[in-house]
Amino acid sequence: MELYRVAVVGALGAVGKEMIKTLEQRNFPMSALIPMDVEAMAGKTVRFKGQDVVVRAAKKGAFTDVDIALFSAGATASFALAPIAAAEGAVVIDNSSAWRMDPTVPLVVPEVNPEALDHHHGIIANPNCSTIQMLVAAKPIHDVYKIKRIVVSTYQAVSGTGGPAIAELINQAGQFSRKEKIGVSVYARQILFNALPQIDVFLENGYTKEEMKMVNETHKILDESISVCPTAVRVAVFRGHSEAINIETERPFVLSDVAKLLQNSPGILMMDDPEKQLYPTALDVDGKDAVHIGRLRLDPTVPNGLNMWVVADNLRKGAALNAIQIAETLLARGFKSKAA
Amino acid sequence: MELYRVAVVGALGAVGKEMIKTLEQRNFPMSALIPMDVEAMAGKTVRFKGQDVVVRAAKKGAFTDVDIALFSAGATASFALAPIAAAEGAVVIDNSSAWRMDPTVPLVVPEVNPEALDHHHGIIANPNCSTIQMLVAAKPIHDVYKIKRIVVSTYQAVSGTGGPAIAELINQAGQFSRKEKIGVSVYARQILFNALPQIDVFLENGYTKEEMKMVNETHKILDESISVCPTAVRVAVFRGHSEAINIETERPFVLSDVAKLLQNSPGILMMDDPEKQLYPTALDVDGKDAVHIGRLRLDPTVPNGLNMWVVADNLRKGAALNAIQIAETLLARGFKSKAA
Repeated sequence: MELYRVAVVGALGAVGKEMIKTLEQRNFPMSALIPMDVEAMAGKTVRFKGQDVVVRAAKKGAFTDVDIALFSAGATASFALAPIAAAEGAVVIDNSSAWRMDPTVPLVVPEVNPEALDHHHGIIANPNCSTIQMLVAAKPIHDVYKIKRIVVSTYQAVSGTGGPAIAELINQAGQFSRKEKIGVSVYARQILFNALPQIDVFLENGYTKEEMKMVNETHKILDESISVCPTAVRVAVFRGHSEAINIETERPFVLSDVAKLLQNSPGILMMDDPEKQLYPTALDVDGKDAVHIGRLRLDPTVPNGLNMWVVADNLRKGAALNAIQIAETLLARGFKSKAA
Repeated sequence: MELYRVAVVGALGAVGKEMIKTLEQRNFPMSALIPMDVEAMAGKTVRFKGQDVVVRAAKKGAFTDVDIALFSAGATASFALAPIAAAEGAVVIDNSSAWRMDPTVPLVVPEVNPEALDHHHGIIANPNCSTIQMLVAAKPIHDVYKIKRIVVSTYQAVSGTGGPAIAELINQAGQFSRKEKIGVSVYARQILFNALPQIDVFLENGYTKEEMKMVNETHKILDESISVCPTAVRVAVFRGHSEAINIETERPFVLSDVAKLLQNSPGILMMDDPEKQLYPTALDVDGKDAVHIGRLRLDPTVPNGLNMWVVADNLRKGAALNAIQIAETLLARGFKSKAA
């Protein structure tokens, strides 16, 4: 079996750590892990397969011995570094928003559009977390019944913002329990015991950047003809994005057929038995790979309408896992190490 | 000015306490507060206008000296007691779900259908919290542009469940901060750092009772022709329900006209300036009377579509305040004390 040299850029961040863990858990065929981070962090170590691996500074010249570079270092770093890594011969799989809408860059959810991987120029983009889980759920329905419109409201975890947001929620819980004043720094408002209808910055049309990612990425990954109307909300959850999704299809369906279809589709776990109060919640999906679906039910207010509740671990399927599945799909489609 | 003898049934509960506070804050024209609760609580006191008032057992014979009885004692108690109170000459304003869909019982949001108060038989129902705030926001739009369909996802506070749920969230936060095992008793799952897509029990159609309240009460209060497609979700918030509301209207509109319309409508406070990150959140509305609206924006995926984010204090406008506003509206429409 061919082995690959895999860099993780942003190795010390929340998603970077998850990438390293996921590479190990999935036993990715690799001869070396090369963790990278900003210059100031170089020399630190990360744990991988029982060993401490030294973090390398991510910069020009650092990628010459890298086959696959998993980037999770933010859009600014990615704009600067991804072309350098690609020029040095690595294939970049980038978790930031930097390259997603670039028409020369494939934007891929392996369950949805793996074929897009066949035409990359050294950079492949990992979609936004809230888009990935929505599209894994939407794809099988779209293939058979053709989706016309999606109205989606999200319940997104703070880990999507990163380590400082996780720390802020932990701190706020402690401050609350000790009856101290609750400090706010990462978000515009207190996130503990609150729900913030803002993720990322506002755009001129009144939507946030996060919301427009769900619109634009759906068009690029699945189908331009699908209308998406999103409201993205941050809730006081550490890990696991939930989405209330309303779908209208072109063609009529029987609900039990949709349930069977979803159950038999890749990457989906149905968790749907209202009689037993069985439905997924954020806490149920922590560390899990599958996109969990529950509360599948008819929407009688339109001709072919349905609702579902879709929950996934935003750090795994929403980020690290999807990136590594992209790498696995690349391999399956014939990608070779440049060392070979 | 005529003064009324006002009973609060369920005076020691979360909503009962809020009712007593609201009566005092609004200086309701009353000659006596008569707090009532279950027999076992009789003899306890509640604080009202600087005095301790003794709680009376709520039972047959207890309502002969009562003009207005604000009930917040749950559906079972209300089924049993409201007809007795009415027979003894009190007008019951009931916060439970017991009487809401009874065709002889007016179901009233004073900003929406005050005229329904003119035909009661001693019992008036206060709508469900999540319905009230949605309809205060929808009514002005419906009057001018005729609403066809609403898709709504809620972010509901635990205080809607009552005191034990508030205590559970406080306890779970403490257990988390002390790194103890987190106990679960009120809800089916841990509510801290989670979002539960279940409020009340499931019905045969796959919707919860809470969701169907939003459908059925909208039809009774505002217009039978409006289609409502709800997903009701409990989040780790103490107080304040938020709703992501998508609306399609029959007639076209200019968004700035809708904003002006809402701004000038009773019971609404616009809090909507994305450039300044101004939008309402649950923590902003704690103790406030108004239904707060932000994130008003076009939905370009349907001909006449808009989205908004609607937040209100579920214990005030969603319960206690609306009940007392019903009483105030009754008075304004000529209701007399039987003592007069």
